[in-house]
Order: sequence, then C-alpha cells, then structure tokens
Amino acid sequence: MKAQELYKQILQKKSCLCVGLDTDTDKIPSFLKESDHPQFEFNKRIIDATHDLVIAYKPNVAFYEKHGSKGWAELEMTCHYIRQNHPDIFLIADAKRGDIGNTSAMYADAVYNRLSCDALTVCPYMGRDSIEPFITGGKWVILLGLTTNAGSADFQLLPLRDKGQLLFERVLQTSSGWGSKDNIMYVVGATRTEWLKKVRAIVPDHFLLIPGIGAQGGKLDEAMEYGLNGVVGLIINASRSVIYAEQSEQFDTAARSAAEKLRQQMEDHLRNRKLI
Amino acid sequence: MKAQELYKQILQKKSCLCVGLDTDTDKIPSFLKESDHPQFEFNKRIIDATHDLVIAYKPNVAFYEKHGSKGWAELEMTCHYIRQNHPDIFLIADAKRGDIGNTSAMYADAVYNRLSCDALTVCPYMGRDSIEPFITGGKWVILLGLTTNAGSADFQLLPLRDKGQLLFERVLQTSSGWGSKDNIMYVVGATRTEWLKKVRAIVPDHFLLIPGIGAQGGKLDEAMEYGLNGVVGLIINASRSVIYAEQSEQFDTAARSAAEKLRQQMEDHLRNRKLI
Repeated sequence: MKAQELYKQILQKKSCLCVGLDTDTDKIPSFLKESDHPQFEFNKRIIDATHDLVIAYKPNVAFYEKHGSKGWAELEMTCHYIRQNHPDIFLIADAKRGDIGNTSAMYADAVYNRLSCDALTVCPYMGRDSIEPFITGGKWVILLGLTTNAGSADFQLLPLRDKGQLLFERVLQTSSGWGSKDNIMYVVGATRTEWLKKVRAIVPDHFLLIPGIGAQGGKLDEAMEYGLNGVVGLIINASRSVIYAEQSEQFDTAARSAAEKLRQQMEDHLRNRKLI
Repeated sequence: MKAQELYKQILQKKSCLCVGLDTDTDKIPSFLKESDHPQFEFNKRIIDATHDLVIAYKPNVAFYEKHGSKGWAELEMTCHYIRQNHPDIFLIADAKRGDIGNTSAMYADAVYNRLSCDALTVCPYMGRDSIEPFITGGKWVILLGLTTNAGSADFQLLPLRDKGQLLFERVLQTSSGWGSKDNIMYVVGATRTEWLKKVRAIVPDHFLLIPGIGAQGGKLDEAMEYGLNGVVGLIINASRSVIYAEQSEQFDTAARSAAEKLRQQMEDHLRNRKLI
C-alpha cells in the first residue's frame, strides 16, 4: 500500500486509529473460550464492529505465538479475514523481528506472504542489512525509534559522543537514508512531548506509529499536537482500551464505542489543524 | 539447565559445538521434500547423526515461521524430539525477540513452554523490562551483544559520550546487572579479536554464544583463543557448514563428519588450555 492510499483512507474515515489485536485468551469473554478458534472469533467480531472507524489493525504476534502452531493458525485466519474483507485497511504485524539478511528475508516472507500484511515492526539494533530485506515490493518496515516502556531509557536515550545526539535520534537519522517515507515508518511513544518534537525535527515527512494510547500512558492530544505533519503522518494505536472495553457478550459494541470516541477526538484535531 | 550442567556436558563431550538448525526447504535434499514434515525429517536425521558431538542445538525460528502455522508445527516437533531423546542438550530458540513486558512474557511462554527450550536470543534495544520476563525459572536469555553482520557497525559500534564506551560495551555492562552468569549469555561474533577482548574485559564469567563460524566469516581459533574462560564459557555455533555439508542421501553422515572436525578442533584448544 502506498503512502498516498493510506492518506486517502485517513481523510475518508477522518481517523488515524489503529486497533491493536493483542488478543489474550485469558481476557476474552468466557463464552468465546469454548470456540475452536477463540482468538479468531474474538478478532472477527472486533473487526466487524470497528472496520469503518480504523485505518489499520495491528495483531501482536506474541499473543498468538504463545499458543504455538495453533496460535499461528488463528493469526493467519485473522490476517486473511482482514485482507479479504477490508483490502484497503493497513495491516501491521507487530512482531519486533530483525536478524542477519538471509534470516530477515525469511521473516519478511512469513509476514508479507503468509500473513499478507502491509508492514511489520522491526528492531534496529542489527543495522542496515537486517532491515533492507523488509523494504520490498511496496511493503513497509516500521522501525523501533523510541518505545513507551521504562526500559527505553536504558539504551535508546544514551547520549552519543558525536553531534550531541541520543541513540534513538541517530537510529532515525541513519535509517531514514535506507529507504524513503514511502517504505519506512517509526514507532515513537507519545509519553513525552519533547521527544516527539525531536523526532519530527529529524523525520518530518515519515509516518509515525504511536503505540500505547491508554494502557501504556501515551497521550492522544500530545501525539496529535506534536506529531501531525502536512499529510497527517500518524497512525495511533490503541489496544486494550478498545478490545477489552467490556467483558460482556456485547464486547464488540463496547469496543466500537471506545474506538469511535478516539476517532472523534482525532477528527477534532484534524479539523483544528485544517487537515480535513 | 544450570551453568554447571552445561559445563559438565562440555567436559564429557570435549565439545562446545552448537549446531544451528537453519533448515531451509529449498536446500534440503530433494528426496525429503515430498515428506509431510520435510523440516522435521531433515532435523531428525541431523540430530540422530550429531547428538553425541554437540552440546546445543539452535533452531532459527525464521526458517520455520516462513511456512506459517505448518512451519511452527515442524519447529515444535523438532524441539520436542530433542527434548525427549536428549534431555541434557541445551536447546536455544534463535528468535531475536524482545518487546514490552507483558508481550515479552508471551514470547517467553511460547519458547519455554510450547517449544520447551532452555534459552532464546533477545534484542536489547528496549531495555530492562523487555528482558526480565525471559529470566525465569532456570531459563536463559541470550542477549545480542555484537553481531557478525556488516550492519552491526551502524549502531552497535557507536561511541557513547560517557566512559569512552561503544554501545555494545554498554549493553553488556548494563544488562549484566539484570541477572547473573547463570541466566544471561551474550551473542558475540568472532569476526574481530579486538572485540572479543573487549567483551571478556566486561563479562569475564558469562557464557558467550559465538555465531557464524564458517559461512558468516567467524573464526573458530580466534573465538577459542580470546573467548575461553576458566569454565570454558563458550557455545560455538555452526549452521550451514554442518547441515548442508552434502546434498546427497547421506547428508547426515556428511554433517556428522563436518561436526566431528569442528569438535576435534575444539578438543585440541581445550587440551592446550588445560581445561580438559
């Protein structure tokens, strides 16, 4: 999917919402647990209830891999369901992969061909040749820039000797030369506005995937105030606050309400900034 | 598995060899490709032919994940076969995972419980709380320190502002405080002896997993000369040079010969250093 198509979808839906399918078999409503495919059945109802409000879905691969080959089958069913019914929706495998070239190429094959995803999240630690196999055939790599967890300070915020940069700033600067704004995005947490400003100073034109709105302490208003660019340039993810909005049999209706509330906030920001 | 048990196995087998099960369906002998489980059948014969020469096996998860849920099933079969028949052999999932805490816990569940592995490789970029869920119940995390690929220079070798350290040195120093030599190892490439010396200056007592002997340009002699410590402290991996030593129906015999040649070199070094 091209950046232009993503932008078009944002304008149509007045939304930059991504729903994270962090589907935990311990947290789904109990009546679904008896199903042969509890994760897929849960996801199907979430997708049916929210697809007109969101521009992207982001299954978190770990939640499926926890169940081994059975979980991988439910992940495949989920991705194929999205691709068949909503081909315009941007599909992200949140997998945090990254390895030497020939191995990264295998992960790319898994995510792009088996799961028919448009993008996956990748860790930058191993450098250029670990990333390049993911930039292929119109697909996107979403590199970890600055994450939302406490441990992000351990290495991502280390000051480097040269240019007065922090490590995550160098990761953005160096890696942005390995592709373009049409095939690289960055994961950037919205936990502190000063970091968002630094990010936009280095990669003004790239899309950012902002995780952790809600449960991880990221702030939607700040993400939009400091993250928006001239073509919106944001995919904002909410997972638990949407998919577990309610544990009842009407969990999907509750998820829709939670998603619509976030989408409306996004629309307000986009209108204020005259982007729609 | 405790460090002491691993050490005992090294002394018994006079080997610190790990065979990487990077089992590529394009590279296995053609007569196996018709099997229902070609990756498992290939691995089974490699394992049957080499288990008395090696202290560890390291399936590379990407090579299975490439085939989606079917590949994951073959990975499960492989790991269970090793665990049931050779419970003393150290089993490493080469997965390069790492995510926020609750997600890392899911990956730990997949690798330790579904695959019954002793250890997995993890990328350090997200810091402490992304690593800690893997240090649990006698299991091991194997953190990427310095990798063998060209891209390792992009970030791992960046000079930091403080203490005149390079990033990978800080990763070793900081992370070694998150666990102990009984639950943390490091991936360190043996492509340059000066780096191995730096690594041993920071983590003299930890086990190191040395990848890429052979195909990736790592040197066995240098790895042993500069990497050995008083309790050996090395797991040295060879993948392609062993498992694809020959493409014939006797590929397993050829793999055994290639493995024995490496093991004999290791024995010579261990004798010269009076470690056995």
